[in-house]
Amino acid sequence: MTTTTTLTPAAPPAAWSGVTRARELLPPLLRDGVARLGDELGRICGYQLGLCDADGRPVPGAGGKLIRPAFSVLCAEAVGGEAADALPAGAAIELLHNASLIHDDIMDGDRVRRHRPTTWVRFGVPRAILAGDALIALGFETLADRRHPATAASIADLARTLRRLAIGQGDDLRFEREREVGVEECLAMLGGKTGALLGCACRLGAAHGADYAAEYGADYAAEYGAVPTAWLDRFEAFGDHLGVAFQLIDDVLGIWGDPAVTGKPVGSDLRARKKSAPVVAALKAGTAASDRLDRLYATPGDLTDHQVAVLTGLVEEAGGRTWTLAEADRRIAAAWELLDPLDLDPVARQGLVDLTTALTARRA
Amino acid sequence: MTTTTTLTPAAPPAAWSGVTRARELLPPLLRDGVARLGDELGRICGYQLGLCDADGRPVPGAGGKLIRPAFSVLCAEAVGGEAADALPAGAAIELLHNASLIHDDIMDGDRVRRHRPTTWVRFGVPRAILAGDALIALGFETLADRRHPATAASIADLARTLRRLAIGQGDDLRFEREREVGVEECLAMLGGKTGALLGCACRLGAAHGADYAAEYGADYAAEYGAVPTAWLDRFEAFGDHLGVAFQLIDDVLGIWGDPAVTGKPVGSDLRARKKSAPVVAALKAGTAASDRLDRLYATPGDLTDHQVAVLTGLVEEAGGRTWTLAEADRRIAAAWELLDPLDLDPVARQGLVDLTTALTARRA
Repeated sequence: MTTTTTLTPAAPPAAWSGVTRARELLPPLLRDGVARLGDELGRICGYQLGLCDADGRPVPGAGGKLIRPAFSVLCAEAVGGEAADALPAGAAIELLHNASLIHDDIMDGDRVRRHRPTTWVRFGVPRAILAGDALIALGFETLADRRHPATAASIADLARTLRRLAIGQGDDLRFEREREVGVEECLAMLGGKTGALLGCACRLGAAHGADYAAEYGADYAAEYGAVPTAWLDRFEAFGDHLGVAFQLIDDVLGIWGDPAVTGKPVGSDLRARKKSAPVVAALKAGTAASDRLDRLYATPGDLTDHQVAVLTGLVEEAGGRTWTLAEADRRIAAAWELLDPLDLDPVARQGLVDLTTALTARRA
Repeated sequence: MTTTTTLTPAAPPAAWSGVTRARELLPPLLRDGVARLGDELGRICGYQLGLCDADGRPVPGAGGKLIRPAFSVLCAEAVGGEAADALPAGAAIELLHNASLIHDDIMDGDRVRRHRPTTWVRFGVPRAILAGDALIALGFETLADRRHPATAASIADLARTLRRLAIGQGDDLRFEREREVGVEECLAMLGGKTGALLGCACRLGAAHGADYAAEYGADYAAEYGAVPTAWLDRFEAFGDHLGVAFQLIDDVLGIWGDPAVTGKPVGSDLRARKKSAPVVAALKAGTAASDRLDRLYATPGDLTDHQVAVLTGLVEEAGGRTWTLAEADRRIAAAWELLDPLDLDPVARQGLVDLTTALTARRA
C-alpha cells in the first residue's frame, strides 16, 4: 500500500504566508468542533488532530501541518477573497483528512504517525473507527453550518471527494493483493488517495473566496458574485495534480529518502512490499531489471538489508525513480497551466508558488 | 452493548403504505448510488444494503426493511408533499444507517446480520471500514446533489445526526467497560444510537415535503414555501422519541423474546452481558434483586442456561421489564403529543400511526 503522503515541507513553515495564516486561524475552529464530540470522542479526535495528548491535556501548536487548509486560504485570496472566508472549508478538509488517516492506519496496521502511537494503537480499533466517523460528521457540519452561497455546492463536492478517497484507498488495498498493477491504475489510485482532497481544498477555498451573500443575498451572489464554475474546475484540477505530484515525490523518498529526514527506516516501503509508484513503474518497464524485481518482490518472507539494497538498485535500474520524478514534474507543470490563464491576486499566487516549491523541493 | 434495533415489523409490510412505497421507490436510487463506488466497493456496499450477494449478483427485493425512509416518505406527505420529494433524504438516511451498521458490527464483533455473515466477516475489516466510509460519502452526496431549498439546512442536520450517532455508539462502548450506568445516561445513549437517525428521517422528510424551488426559486421557497422550523423540530423530536421506544422494546425482546421471532438465541443479550435498558433499570432499582443481579452480572465467565434463567428472573423481579415497556409507552405518547397539534394530511398521518403501531406491537 501507499502510505498517505506526509506533505512535510523542506523549509521552515514561517516562509509561507498561507501556512502561517492557516496555523493561526484554524486551530480555534478545530478546537470548537472537537468540543462538540463530548469528553471521550473529543479527546480521541483531539489526539488525532494533535490538539491534545492522549489524556486530553492541550498541547501547544496548531496540531497538524495544515498544508491543505493553507491551500484553501491561498486559493480564496487568489480570487480576491479573505483568508477567513476559507476557514470552514479548510477545517472541513482537515477534519476529513484526519478521519481518513485514522481509518487508513487501522487498515494498513500502521502503528506510528507524527512520532506518536497511531490513534487505534492508543485507544483501540473500535474507538478509532468511531473517532474517524465523528471527524467526518464534524467536517460536513463545519462546512454546512456556514451559510455561504457556495455551501450547498461545496458540500456536494466534499461528499464526492470523500467517495473518491474511499475508492482510492480501496484500490490501494486491492493492489496489495494483486501482483500486476498498471501505471495508469496506480496514478488513478494516487489521484483518489491524495489528489482528491487537495483538489477539493483548492476548489472550496476558491469557491468561498467571493462572499456577497451577507450584503446582497444568495440569488445575487449566484448571479454576480460567485467564482465561475470553470474557474473552480481549474482550481480543483490544480490541487489534484499537485496532490499526486507530492505523493509521487513522497514515494521516491520512501525508497531513497534520508531516514533522518523522512523519519522512516531505510527501505521501509520496500520491506513492506508496497506497490508505490517507483516500484510499479519499474515493474512495468519491461527491462531485465523489471523481471528480477518482480521475482524478488513476489518472494515471501522478511527481506535482509542486502536484499533491500538489491531491490533499491533494481527499481532505479529499471527507471522507476526517473519516471516517478518526471511524472511529478509533469503534474506540477499541468497544475500551473491550469491557473496561469486566470487573473489572480499576485501575492496569493506567489504564496501558492512558494508553498508548492517548498513541498516539492526534497527529492532525496 | 446494545444491539442496534432491528425494527422488525410484526405484521406483513404490505399493510403500511409508507413502507410499501419506500420499497418501491428507493432501491433504484440506492442502486445508482452504489454504482458510483466502482466494482469492488460497490459490491461490498451492495451486499451490506441487501441489493446483491457477496459476488455482486443482484438479489430480488428492496434490500433492507427501509423503515426509516418510510418515515421520511410519510412525513413529506404529512405536510402536503409527494413521496418522491423525500426520496433523496430517505436514501441518505438509509445509507448512513447502513454505514453505522457496518462499523458497529466491527466494533461489537457481531458476525451475523439479516441471516447473513456481517460485512466485515465476509470481506475483512479493512474493506468493511472503507465500505462504511463510502456509504457515508454517498449519503451526503445523494442529499447534496438534489438542489432543493431544504438541502443546505438538511445537510447540516444530517451531519449533526451522524455526530450524535457516533457519540451514542461511543457511550455504548464505554458502558461495556463501566459497572455503573445510570438510567438517564442509558436513555441518552439510546437517543444517540437510534433516536437521532429516525428523528432526522422524519425532519428531512417533512423539510422536503414543500417544494416550490423549481417554480419560484429558492428565495421564494424560503419565505413562503418551506415547512416552518418549529414544525421540523417537532417532526425530529417525534422520530427521536419513537426511535428510542423501538429500541426499548427491542431490548425487552432481546431478553424475553421468542428466538423463533427475534432470530437470536434465548438470553443472548444477557449472555453477552449487555447493559441494555431493562438491565440498567433493574440494576438501578435498589431492590434485593438488583444487588443479586449486579453480583451475578459482574462475575466473569460463560453463563450456563440456568444462570441465564436466573438473571432473566432477577431483571424481571427488579422491575426492569416493566420500567422499560412503560418508558417505551411514555416515549410513544410524547411523540404523538408533538404531532397532534399540527394540521397534517390525514391519510399520511394514519400511515404514521399504522407503522408505529406495527413496530411497537411485539412486546414478547
